[in-house]
Amino acid sequence: MTRTSGEIAKYLGARLEGDAFVEVTGVASPGGARPHDLIYVDSARHLSRASTSAARVVIVPLGAGLAGKTVLEVNDPKLAFAKVAAWIVERPRARAAIHPTAVVSSTARLAAGVSIGPYVVIEDECSVGQNTTIAAFCYVGREAQVGEDCWLHPRVTLYQGAQLGNRVEVHSGAVIGSDGFGYVFGESRQWKFPQIGNVEIADDVEIGANTTIDRGSLETTHVGNGVKIDNLVQIAHNVQIGEHSVIAAQTGVSGSSTIGRQCVVAGQVGIADHCRIEDRAILGAQAGIPSGKTIRRGQTVWGTPARALDKFKEQYGLMARLPALAERVRKLEELKEKQ
Amino acid sequence: MTRTSGEIAKYLGARLEGDAFVEVTGVASPGGARPHDLIYVDSARHLSRASTSAARVVIVPLGAGLAGKTVLEVNDPKLAFAKVAAWIVERPRARAAIHPTAVVSSTARLAAGVSIGPYVVIEDECSVGQNTTIAAFCYVGREAQVGEDCWLHPRVTLYQGAQLGNRVEVHSGAVIGSDGFGYVFGESRQWKFPQIGNVEIADDVEIGANTTIDRGSLETTHVGNGVKIDNLVQIAHNVQIGEHSVIAAQTGVSGSSTIGRQCVVAGQVGIADHCRIEDRAILGAQAGIPSGKTIRRGQTVWGTPARALDKFKEQYGLMARLPALAERVRKLEELKEKQ
Amino acid sequence: MTRTSGEIAKYLGARLEGDAFVEVTGVASPGGARPHDLIYVDSARHLSRASTSAARVVIVPLGAGLAGKTVLEVNDPKLAFAKVAAWIVERPRARAAIHPTAVVSSTARLAAGVSIGPYVVIEDECSVGQNTTIAAFCYVGREAQVGEDCWLHPRVTLYQGAQLGNRVEVHSGAVIGSDGFGYVFGESRQWKFPQIGNVEIADDVEIGANTTIDRGSLETTHVGNGVKIDNLVQIAHNVQIGEHSVIAAQTGVSGSSTIGRQCVVAGQVGIADHCRIEDRAILGAQAGIPSGKTIRRGQTVWGTPARALDKFKEQYGLMARLPALAERVRKLEELKEKQ
Repeated sequence: MTRTSGEIAKYLGARLEGDAFVEVTGVASPGGARPHDLIYVDSARHLSRASTSAARVVIVPLGAGLAGKTVLEVNDPKLAFAKVAAWIVERPRARAAIHPTAVVSSTARLAAGVSIGPYVVIEDECSVGQNTTIAAFCYVGREAQVGEDCWLHPRVTLYQGAQLGNRVEVHSGAVIGSDGFGYVFGESRQWKFPQIGNVEIADDVEIGANTTIDRGSLETTHVGNGVKIDNLVQIAHNVQIGEHSVIAAQTGVSGSSTIGRQCVVAGQVGIADHCRIEDRAILGAQAGIPSGKTIRRGQTVWGTPARALDKFKEQYGLMARLPALAERVRKLEELKEKQ
Repeated sequence: MTRTSGEIAKYLGARLEGDAFVEVTGVASPGGARPHDLIYVDSARHLSRASTSAARVVIVPLGAGLAGKTVLEVNDPKLAFAKVAAWIVERPRARAAIHPTAVVSSTARLAAGVSIGPYVVIEDECSVGQNTTIAAFCYVGREAQVGEDCWLHPRVTLYQGAQLGNRVEVHSGAVIGSDGFGYVFGESRQWKFPQIGNVEIADDVEIGANTTIDRGSLETTHVGNGVKIDNLVQIAHNVQIGEHSVIAAQTGVSGSSTIGRQCVVAGQVGIADHCRIEDRAILGAQAGIPSGKTIRRGQTVWGTPARALDKFKEQYGLMARLPALAERVRKLEELKEKQ
Repeated sequence: MTRTSGEIAKYLGARLEGDAFVEVTGVASPGGARPHDLIYVDSARHLSRASTSAARVVIVPLGAGLAGKTVLEVNDPKLAFAKVAAWIVERPRARAAIHPTAVVSSTARLAAGVSIGPYVVIEDECSVGQNTTIAAFCYVGREAQVGEDCWLHPRVTLYQGAQLGNRVEVHSGAVIGSDGFGYVFGESRQWKFPQIGNVEIADDVEIGANTTIDRGSLETTHVGNGVKIDNLVQIAHNVQIGEHSVIAAQTGVSGSSTIGRQCVVAGQVGIADHCRIEDRAILGAQAGIPSGKTIRRGQTVWGTPARALDKFKEQYGLMARLPALAERVRKLEELKEKQ
């Protein structure tokens, strides 16, 4: 979609310096940009990257001029860039149609404008909201519900009854609604604890490739509005994730744990069962949260078992100085001997 | 399936207090139950949850009465609940039929009562045992064998020759029999070590979504009877897993390691190559077992590198007190100076 | 493929002791071998395994004779064994043909000798090089390019524009070119940072089952020649991996990090964003490399946060002796009190 630099300035509420009629057709990095791509620089230190770029329009921090370019000054250039990208970059979705190879139950309800790709299977009593795209090889289990404007990339599995809100994007290979992992050992074998709850994904959620989200055992697994989940993440049964939290790749959240709103969970974090991560908490990469633990609102933790970031740094600093400490103790002992 | 409270008491060997003729049609949590659902409480502390539940029949610990409900007293309520659930909750499997879109080799042997879903591919010389369900998009490679009463959820891949016993359940996206990861570096490149062994999954195994189990290099990868494996687990070539062990999500077991019987491996554990985890060992979440290490029968270990749980606790306790220890050493030095 | 012991000796440049005309038809382990299988022993200590094997031809270390067998003496028996296996063991690929159920765009360019399995989807403007095998349920997105002699196992997804070189092997469930994970928080929601770069996989790369490799955000994600990646690995946007590096299972590499040539990354390693792993570095299992960190050429590191292996060992050794150290400090304090 083509917009002028002036239209973009208006959309962003940005201060425009330069030509208000440059046509912008896409976004790019400074090095990869063509003249009609929009670029951004995050700080004044990186302005030189922009000045040597072919791009004619640059989003810059407030007060950072740039000779020879049309600049849009904003408070948060990266945010402004993301907003413009969401506005002008069209994502290549398939056109509305039902591919003749799709196997769609006669009891499924498909709204107007849906796109169903080749070899999709949609079971009985499903519903799919309008303008939703379901790409090749997706499996939509019995009674599953997919909202409006969703995008399921190829090879997504929704188990029976899984519920997706509106504008949910799910990447290839993700599995939503698989059985949780619960067994009771007795009489020399493992008995499966019933995994008959459901799974609800709210609106504006994005789910990464090959991520798995289990259905509840007796309750419902819930992923809140605006949550973003990276690739290869495991969300176990009965987990509750609050609005706008982000969870990076390969993190695992165990059964019945809750994550608050606007939390940031880095990669390869392990959250054991029945934990409570309060709003806006930040869990550092590879952190391990032991069973039943609470992380307080806004706290940043690190390590396994996770502790407050400053504690973690102090302890690891001391660990690095352990050899020196041991040597100091040895010297004190030596002096003692001599006395 | 409907059973009366009396029939359930008999099945469990439970002491029934109340009405032996209440019909039970399902299981639920106390909060989510309808009158004909069975619920349980694990300890006397939680009896109040049951008393306010709509459920009429409750499994309780021995000696824990509950006014106004029909109670079934047992030694282990959670186990009893799982057993009743396995007995009365019907799991919604597709009816026996071969979907017209399935591509089934003429040399494959399908027993009676199998259900083959849409877009399943079954290659030459495979066999599928009776009453087995193979859902949409599963790929059963040449000469693979699937036993009786198995359930392959949508999008499971069995590589050539993979063998599954009876009553094996495999969740969506799991891959069984992929090549192991072995290379020898020489002449400026990596040479692939042959990955031509096989993979055998015994009876009553459950395998989680997007889990990967590699075939052996020259030997056979083996998963024993009753083993339960969670989502996103990696089992490498030549691994042997003993009966009734459970392995939680995102754990990785490296080449040629063995896990004994009834072991419990928590989430995100890493077991390096050629380890030996003996029977009933317990590996805590995120534990790392170094190459070639043995974990003794029944031992509980934690941390990386893993050590006995009490040692781990002692060391981490001391680590938390390292700042204080360093300060004490500083004081001793100060006193020394003054002398 | 059948070769004689003499032909194999010539191929390897090995010293042959025994019969130069034994036919060899495969490779095996000493215990599993039949007479015409080739086996190897890595060190003189394991010669007894070979002498009791049914195999007639054995690759052994230089100078290690073995009565009753035809031996091929080489400097590196395991490497020699892998080379012979690559030469004589035929891997069972489907014959060249396009399955009638494949949905192939009329604008896709398929070279001679390709094999396209059942239910493959190949979108517009793709190209597939000669003798490449694309197995069942693979999805090749619009404008994706696959080189010559590649092998995509069942259920591989290539997103739009993904590029694969020659002789690339991709295992089942892998996803290449999914969106990277990047958001900017503002106005009470997460805005998606554009993920419109591409992904290039060079020649002779192998990619494990259920591994995910994201496309670049604005740049290109690049995996170099000869790189080998295990199962369930996550490669984030803009990552660059140098030639002949190997990355074991469940490792995650975060955005914009670079890995040099011939690096060895063990299992469950976490590399945060913007790290620089230089050539031939070795990262131990479960190591965690913090954001922006450089690991020097040839260095071996361990732990989280990762440090040099000898430092790691010293610190962990001291940690194990912390109880003793604390006790020694207590004693010094006691003596001090008495003074």
